[in-house]
Amino acid sequence: MIHVAVLGYGTVGSGVVEVIENNNAEVSVKAGEEMHVKYILDLRDFPGDPYEDRVVHDFQIILEDAEVSVICEVMGGVGAAYQFTRQALEAGKSVCTSNKELVARHGAELLEIAKNKNCSYMFEASVGGGIPIIRPINKALTAEKLENISAILNGTTNFILTKMEKEGADYGETLKRAQELGYAERNPEADVEGYDACRKIAILSSLMVGKNVNAEKIYTEGITKITPADFAYAGAAGMTIKLLAFSRADENGRVTAMVAPAMISREHPLSVVNDVYNGVFVKGNMLGDVMFYGRGAGKLPTASAVVSDVIDCARHIGRSSIVCIWEREEAELTDISETERAFFIRAAADAREAVEAAFPEGRSLTVEGREKDFGFLTAVMKEKDFEERYSGLGDRVLNRIRIA
Amino acid sequence: MIHVAVLGYGTVGSGVVEVIENNNAEVSVKAGEEMHVKYILDLRDFPGDPYEDRVVHDFQIILEDAEVSVICEVMGGVGAAYQFTRQALEAGKSVCTSNKELVARHGAELLEIAKNKNCSYMFEASVGGGIPIIRPINKALTAEKLENISAILNGTTNFILTKMEKEGADYGETLKRAQELGYAERNPEADVEGYDACRKIAILSSLMVGKNVNAEKIYTEGITKITPADFAYAGAAGMTIKLLAFSRADENGRVTAMVAPAMISREHPLSVVNDVYNGVFVKGNMLGDVMFYGRGAGKLPTASAVVSDVIDCARHIGRSSIVCIWEREEAELTDISETERAFFIRAAADAREAVEAAFPEGRSLTVEGREKDFGFLTAVMKEKDFEERYSGLGDRVLNRIRIA
Repeated sequence: MIHVAVLGYGTVGSGVVEVIENNNAEVSVKAGEEMHVKYILDLRDFPGDPYEDRVVHDFQIILEDAEVSVICEVMGGVGAAYQFTRQALEAGKSVCTSNKELVARHGAELLEIAKNKNCSYMFEASVGGGIPIIRPINKALTAEKLENISAILNGTTNFILTKMEKEGADYGETLKRAQELGYAERNPEADVEGYDACRKIAILSSLMVGKNVNAEKIYTEGITKITPADFAYAGAAGMTIKLLAFSRADENGRVTAMVAPAMISREHPLSVVNDVYNGVFVKGNMLGDVMFYGRGAGKLPTASAVVSDVIDCARHIGRSSIVCIWEREEAELTDISETERAFFIRAAADAREAVEAAFPEGRSLTVEGREKDFGFLTAVMKEKDFEERYSGLGDRVLNRIRIA
Repeated sequence: MIHVAVLGYGTVGSGVVEVIENNNAEVSVKAGEEMHVKYILDLRDFPGDPYEDRVVHDFQIILEDAEVSVICEVMGGVGAAYQFTRQALEAGKSVCTSNKELVARHGAELLEIAKNKNCSYMFEASVGGGIPIIRPINKALTAEKLENISAILNGTTNFILTKMEKEGADYGETLKRAQELGYAERNPEADVEGYDACRKIAILSSLMVGKNVNAEKIYTEGITKITPADFAYAGAAGMTIKLLAFSRADENGRVTAMVAPAMISREHPLSVVNDVYNGVFVKGNMLGDVMFYGRGAGKLPTASAVVSDVIDCARHIGRSSIVCIWEREEAELTDISETERAFFIRAAADAREAVEAAFPEGRSLTVEGREKDFGFLTAVMKEKDFEERYSGLGDRVLNRIRIA
């Protein structure tokens, strides 16, 4: 019997209990032993809940129970969650988490403790919800030198952008609708400013290079400035707009990473990742391109990913199932301003001559019915050269978006 | 040191050697020990080849060398490949393969031998080339009850269909071009008649239900009757045409499986899986939809998948790394004629009244410039009811394609 404790009985936590109970036959066969949720840690009580008898308020009960071998940390945050995770691992109990903030900040350290204590720290659910992405990178693409990752990692912003494109609605009203539907939080900053996607690409980048990629040093730009007009021009160019997280490793292990809205060709598989779905596009040196697609959030998909980690731990009791390399040493991040790409510009109609003079190698985009502004695609150039010329155009230029 | 033997020095075999040598640092770190190709079994000699000194002609040399712990069977076929695999597993040596024909036919038996001998039989490369799909199903989606799989599993036919759609070219000339480019074999039957996709969906279905799904009993239809006219009507209905492999498991473990061309909505992620790419769409009861996408064939992608299996075996020397359940017991297949779906019909213009009378609940599709025929979408109905009404229409109906 594998005794599991769940820390936090919120959305994901109740999903974890539901997956272990509802799919108990499948889960137990895969784990090699029957699996059972022994404790649920929460500050609240849950009178009437079918599992109310398993709710405890004191983490020490779990820590001191030798029967508990696997702990699911689905409480979030980097305070108590960090302390409890450290204590559990130090006690040789494996921890499975969906807490991307904690993984991005302390992943390297927690992995080190787990390895030393012959247990595991697993975080499949921290990126891409239910989509298997961490495990494929660690266990399936093992023969590969990973070269780059491009991904849609945030369901909230992807939902907003999809609706804006399909309905021609503006950002503010679409955000409001997403909030009403429960797809965006009342304080949406972490999603719409790209911070959530940033933490996730930091995790994937760390696994790609085996060193710690500091999320706080990754250039991050949100979607709040995107307008229906931008989508109209993107459509005219055979593209759409997505909040993309990129990461590339050079041969010296230096990382170029960024989170920003980008125009992407309608031919690219990421362009059909719509609504709350996520997609992770990975390029390996032998394999070429692979993409993983699925629900990037939600109670049961995320819980399913947590439980897949629990099963992995259950199959490795007494030894670590960790195969990834993620050293504490910090990876070097390149200066974004030196990287090269093409840009889309939207500008007032009377700025046409100025834009064409600043970017003589670009080309204009027109959309029927739009006369007050126009679109423009530049040639490929360094970010810093673009910014210099673009800022010289003053407020006649209305927006600029990178081309993926 | 992990000593590996490669059986068959053809395209995939030379790719396996190349991946192990070129990515040796990555591969060895992931395996936990240095990896080395000790033998290459082939009937031919390879004078001048950098690894010519490792070529042997007698399998007994490999079988009797206690240092060899992992064997890559990339020779294909179900004769010698089957004998060598059995002998290797009986001797406790793990076998990793790309041989889908052998896996589809003898997978259950070979897995059983491997488990009994504390070694592994691994076949990530048998489905989807380099795309991680077998391992995610076995190791990542472990908390799931898998409900169905829809997939594009054959790169050759997907290339042909993509070109037919984009260029309006007919089947025969597109096949010829695919052969010239090396994307189709001189004898293309296994690909274009759907047999290759059938073996692969049999493997995935067996893993989905844990019992043996017999490929020979799966209804299989190829792409040879698809015409540019069908693509024109598909386009008018917001769809495209793909050779789809489907499989669904009901609550009693009964399997409904089929390989056939199908019209699929342009909104579905499989619709943008183009050219030689493959896509596997999986639905789990907790997770919802997930898709895996990538190069379904090719020397290095396939070799990369084989080597990911070798690494897994290397990490489990002396014990089996097999986690899948695939019993020898045969799974029950449902009768396709009882399953329900909608159909597309293309018919001569003068058959319109007859078609509308036979399918009163359907609707017509028109394409500008096409006057001699018309398209028609039926309501959802049982296959047998459709076939009865359709066959009654005689040769005025020109084609029929299932709607996914």
